[in-house]
Amino acid sequence: MSRPAAIRVGLLGFGTIGTGVAKVLARNAAVIERRLGAPLRLVRIADLDLAHDRGVDLAGIRFDADAEGLVRDPGVDIVVELIGGTGAARRLLLLAIESGKPVVTANKALLAQHGKEIFDAAAERGVDVAFEASVGGGIPILRAIREGLAANRIQSVHGIINGTTNYMLSEMERTGEAFDTVLARAQALGFAEADPSTDVDGIDAAHKLTLLAAMAFGAELTVKDIPTEGIRGIQPIDFDAAREFGYRIKLLAIAKTGSEDEAGRPGPIEARVQPTLIPATSLLAKVDGAMNAVAVCGDAVGTTLFYGAGAGELPTASAVVGDLIEIARELRRGSAGRVAPLAFLPHALVRRDLVPLGDLFGRAYLRFTAVDRPAVLAHITGVLGEHGIGIESVIQKGRGNLAASVPVLMLSDPAREAALRRALEKIDRLPDVTAPTRLIRIEEEL
Amino acid sequence: MSRPAAIRVGLLGFGTIGTGVAKVLARNAAVIERRLGAPLRLVRIADLDLAHDRGVDLAGIRFDADAEGLVRDPGVDIVVELIGGTGAARRLLLLAIESGKPVVTANKALLAQHGKEIFDAAAERGVDVAFEASVGGGIPILRAIREGLAANRIQSVHGIINGTTNYMLSEMERTGEAFDTVLARAQALGFAEADPSTDVDGIDAAHKLTLLAAMAFGAELTVKDIPTEGIRGIQPIDFDAAREFGYRIKLLAIAKTGSEDEAGRPGPIEARVQPTLIPATSLLAKVDGAMNAVAVCGDAVGTTLFYGAGAGELPTASAVVGDLIEIARELRRGSAGRVAPLAFLPHALVRRDLVPLGDLFGRAYLRFTAVDRPAVLAHITGVLGEHGIGIESVIQKGRGNLAASVPVLMLSDPAREAALRRALEKIDRLPDVTAPTRLIRIEEEL
Repeated sequence: MSRPAAIRVGLLGFGTIGTGVAKVLARNAAVIERRLGAPLRLVRIADLDLAHDRGVDLAGIRFDADAEGLVRDPGVDIVVELIGGTGAARRLLLLAIESGKPVVTANKALLAQHGKEIFDAAAERGVDVAFEASVGGGIPILRAIREGLAANRIQSVHGIINGTTNYMLSEMERTGEAFDTVLARAQALGFAEADPSTDVDGIDAAHKLTLLAAMAFGAELTVKDIPTEGIRGIQPIDFDAAREFGYRIKLLAIAKTGSEDEAGRPGPIEARVQPTLIPATSLLAKVDGAMNAVAVCGDAVGTTLFYGAGAGELPTASAVVGDLIEIARELRRGSAGRVAPLAFLPHALVRRDLVPLGDLFGRAYLRFTAVDRPAVLAHITGVLGEHGIGIESVIQKGRGNLAASVPVLMLSDPAREAALRRALEKIDRLPDVTAPTRLIRIEEEL
Repeated sequence: MSRPAAIRVGLLGFGTIGTGVAKVLARNAAVIERRLGAPLRLVRIADLDLAHDRGVDLAGIRFDADAEGLVRDPGVDIVVELIGGTGAARRLLLLAIESGKPVVTANKALLAQHGKEIFDAAAERGVDVAFEASVGGGIPILRAIREGLAANRIQSVHGIINGTTNYMLSEMERTGEAFDTVLARAQALGFAEADPSTDVDGIDAAHKLTLLAAMAFGAELTVKDIPTEGIRGIQPIDFDAAREFGYRIKLLAIAKTGSEDEAGRPGPIEARVQPTLIPATSLLAKVDGAMNAVAVCGDAVGTTLFYGAGAGELPTASAVVGDLIEIARELRRGSAGRVAPLAFLPHALVRRDLVPLGDLFGRAYLRFTAVDRPAVLAHITGVLGEHGIGIESVIQKGRGNLAASVPVLMLSDPAREAALRRALEKIDRLPDVTAPTRLIRIEEEL
């Protein structure tokens, strides 16, 4: 029996993840061939930095700066895009598709912003686009939703899907240090970028959530639709108060839908990225450091949870190479397009309106900052009461210094968010209230 | 555009899971079609019990006792086997394969004992065999190992994969009740069978572990190879002691391998089913009641964990129908056999010897039962010391009653199991030791 022809991979972008992909393809070549039935071989790499030693043996691999040449190279069967950004990456991905080549990418920003263009082009040309690495790093979460849970009407997705912010929240909680201190350390350790805003302002998580929501509900959202709040406003005292109330604080990407009816007509959708108090006993609350996890609830399966490393050279490479193996199988069997990339057939992806934030209903954590005078609590609760909002628990910290501002920490009873916001607006104008009130939503059902 | 032809499903066995499959196919027909691109329709059911009302609308579904007729029916495209057992189920599965029909099954006992025959027949005939529901109920764990983590050399699998025993251990821990009391309740609630031995003696978990080990390592094991110990010997005091030592007790299915070398030559394998002390802070320790979870460690991805309902009508149906959707895709694309069912190509599945239990090395929890005399502890630790086994911690309970036997609970230092066993044999012959000593292994790396 002659050995089957190798499937030949071209890699655009030889940074951290690209280096991981080269390493995994090299060191796990034997086990991959035992699973796939053919060699999966890295034959060409394009990157602008040709000098830096990545510690990868490049024997037999063509390495130059000619990205377009790589994409057009008839000796490349699958193109991996790890350039990042939405400029050259988009152009090269589309060029690969146009050339009839399947592509693998980890680029959530590109897919969240130009996904429709890319998926439409791929469907038209009959090639696969795979992107498992774009959400949850090494966790095979997209495949789980798209295939493993395909029998379900998915009801909700709750994800810790940004490793940088989860690391920072874990550190703030562990050390009691402030946001800026922990951010500086995360930057020093390489867990946060020099410009951290994509991570700490929740934008990265919102990109990923557009993909999760599409795959879970068949909902065509754009990242601009998704209310997004990052972790800059969280203070050390919030972790202490949350713990006293029985919660932990996580940056969650949340998407929920009222169940589809029997005819498949979809219910309303909630989607948002926000710091959230979640029960300390929940599995998601145990997800610490740079780890990621996604809880998916389906009408048949109930609650499932998928946990693993959300970033990093080798975990992300695990997902990229997993996609390469799948695409290699499709190439060998001529079954490209077998599975719809967004889990629903393109015509079944539907624009969906989101429930406005004001319509959310639930309990909230409130941090008021007020001068420590006896009547302050009465004033605050009075305004809340006027708006029909009850109080479940109150903690007052650092009292006894009549001149200073002190935090007043509360759990509200379940309330409509619009009413809460109106009450807070009024409270923040009280003379004794010295800083804007912080509201953090609570998710109980985890 | 004319509507694509329906993929027609025949169901063998209309018990709990079969009923769930019928319900999910009916109520989620619309969403499944939006994902698959064609209707997936239940057209025929065979079961000996034709009288019992399952609460399923059977309009348009042929329902009789003719299992063989169903398998041979040219109007059935995919056969689902939910009969259970290894008699008729095996015969009918093989008949379906012989007739060129792909099959879906949840039957771990059948696959653990006759998997080779079934997979060989399917490979020869070019049809798919899918069995996601056979391990971890609704959790798409087999798909994760086979496809999502395919880029990895898998290093270990630790699973809570029997819901009955996890429910019982959780209840014993919560209530302090004895095994027999909790078993009776589990039976009354339908969580345990009238003859519970398949579950409580670890046999069901061992069946599942043969499948996990095959898919993780390409190791051809038979269930007889796997050292299997159930939960009958666990006493309420073990939970208390475990907690004091910082652990919880779970019935784990464990498979580990030394990493494959660069040439793909496999390292030695450990595989066993056993009650295990695991760190109370680990995610697996939080898996309570009838829930299941599997932690998978790969060389690239690191540690991942997959959690969900391990049994039950609808969760198991979620996995069965997920397999039906996948097979329907392969049928539509003519790509049957695209993925090797056991994750490695048949020729790459290799018989592997297991590391003997005596060669295991680690810490252990020991429960001695001895008359409460001052010298007893010295005698026990003396014998342990003679065998080179150190003690990390000791708890003595119920002291002060000189006539009675009391438990002495210890954590050993890391030791070779053969040495431990020899020491325990000698200790159990000491005149003051009144019952056989119980050893429970500890897994630290979770």
